[in-house]
Amino acid sequence: MPITRRDLSNQALAMAILGMMPPFAAAQAKESAPADGMTGLPPSWYGSEKIAFLAYPGFAVLDLTGPFHMLGSLLGSTPFVVAKSRESVVADPKLKVMPDHTFDSCPADLDIICVPGGGEGTLDAMRDEPTINFLKDRGARARYVTSVCTGSLVLAAAGLLQGYRATSHWLARDLLPEFGAEPVDARVVVDRNRITGAGVTAGLDMGLSLVGRLRDRQYAETVQLLAEYAPEPPYHAGTPSSASAENVKMCEAMFVGFLESARAIAVNYRGARK
Amino acid sequence: MPITRRDLSNQALAMAILGMMPPFAAAQAKESAPADGMTGLPPSWYGSEKIAFLAYPGFAVLDLTGPFHMLGSLLGSTPFVVAKSRESVVADPKLKVMPDHTFDSCPADLDIICVPGGGEGTLDAMRDEPTINFLKDRGARARYVTSVCTGSLVLAAAGLLQGYRATSHWLARDLLPEFGAEPVDARVVVDRNRITGAGVTAGLDMGLSLVGRLRDRQYAETVQLLAEYAPEPPYHAGTPSSASAENVKMCEAMFVGFLESARAIAVNYRGARK
Repeated sequence: MPITRRDLSNQALAMAILGMMPPFAAAQAKESAPADGMTGLPPSWYGSEKIAFLAYPGFAVLDLTGPFHMLGSLLGSTPFVVAKSRESVVADPKLKVMPDHTFDSCPADLDIICVPGGGEGTLDAMRDEPTINFLKDRGARARYVTSVCTGSLVLAAAGLLQGYRATSHWLARDLLPEFGAEPVDARVVVDRNRITGAGVTAGLDMGLSLVGRLRDRQYAETVQLLAEYAPEPPYHAGTPSSASAENVKMCEAMFVGFLESARAIAVNYRGARK
Repeated sequence: MPITRRDLSNQALAMAILGMMPPFAAAQAKESAPADGMTGLPPSWYGSEKIAFLAYPGFAVLDLTGPFHMLGSLLGSTPFVVAKSRESVVADPKLKVMPDHTFDSCPADLDIICVPGGGEGTLDAMRDEPTINFLKDRGARARYVTSVCTGSLVLAAAGLLQGYRATSHWLARDLLPEFGAEPVDARVVVDRNRITGAGVTAGLDMGLSLVGRLRDRQYAETVQLLAEYAPEPPYHAGTPSSASAENVKMCEAMFVGFLESARAIAVNYRGARK
């Protein structure tokens, strides 16, 4: 079967999505596509998004890497990790990630900013002035302001969810009103340019739906197929309504301290707004 | 409502699972549990697994971090990243991860070894003698030898799937027989102590099912609930059978080069076994 121009363009797309195209070829393809149509790819499939993922000590690894994988599949985009300093950031579970940018070196205008959640480390991030100031600044201009899990509480502490509908980890969602946000029980909540995901694994759904929004459905479905994202959880206990009452109670008991600390931060938040 | 001993033990478990228990308290809980039953946690919920995740240039971030999150929830376990050198390893999409161990410093006897997949970087790992020798050595004694996505091809190149049923990314699964393995079209395949996952996101299912195997169902369901693992993919296109024919063809076209290179490695593999 002869290879058609359509096949070649599909191959170029798939290579680009999988990160298999060397940067030079990708740049060339990007330039030539709108100019002479050689690659045959729709110009709308190319972007140049600057996508910042906030890393802070104790962030939940999967909160960040779920959307990082999905959004990293955007042809022409630059996903990177930003942190307070150039030192490695220790995530939860313990994984050491090297940031690409500090708050100072991070591009001023971002297309997407994504904040992962976590436990104690997230509370520390909510209390950390440089972190909050960074989010206030970049979040004010970013095209999309996003979070996964309790990352929405960090956005909230920066005032970025004031008057917005949002979600969070199911254990933390009811805290959102204390920061002026309206809690929604959904896996992914979109309100204008704020996109928040529920607990941990919801970051995959948040990221993939944002890929569809930034490109188109065929593009996002190709990313899904390459990620073989057809989940088969071995148990059926991923939400409070599907889990056993005992497990729900267990998790709630553990979260008492976290919620107390977060409420204390909310008091300061409301005080500062008066 | 008074707090019962049962509540306290549940709280201890949840805190430990979420990584919220300081190491000292966790060690204390572990010692006291079997001794005097103070924590009330079943001794079977504690382990001491050494869990190595192989990082090599170009590994797919989510292949590693899916099971890293799930297995990192095992109370008492030590998950860590092992690489050829102490330098940061650049994953795909571009994320810099600092290894905890080199091949030399990695514990000799592992409970679990997990190999992520990827694209060109995975082919390089399959060709890299120190990487293959490391896997042959640790894989021969590990309690569980696991992989995600094309990581199974790296295991296969190390001879670790010879005579085993296994899976891989749907695009690469048919290569397994070239390395003496029997391909199975399933999301997670268990054959004796070999546990292989399908493409990228299958690592979450692989990891969570292994948590259930190493502890028990209630433990695994708590991990699932805390990860809010009740996926809602925004599209229904994650497998070749659910995706459009055009998308499948697009991905297949891109993979031609990868498959050719992998087949060449398989020829050497079979030659070396003669």
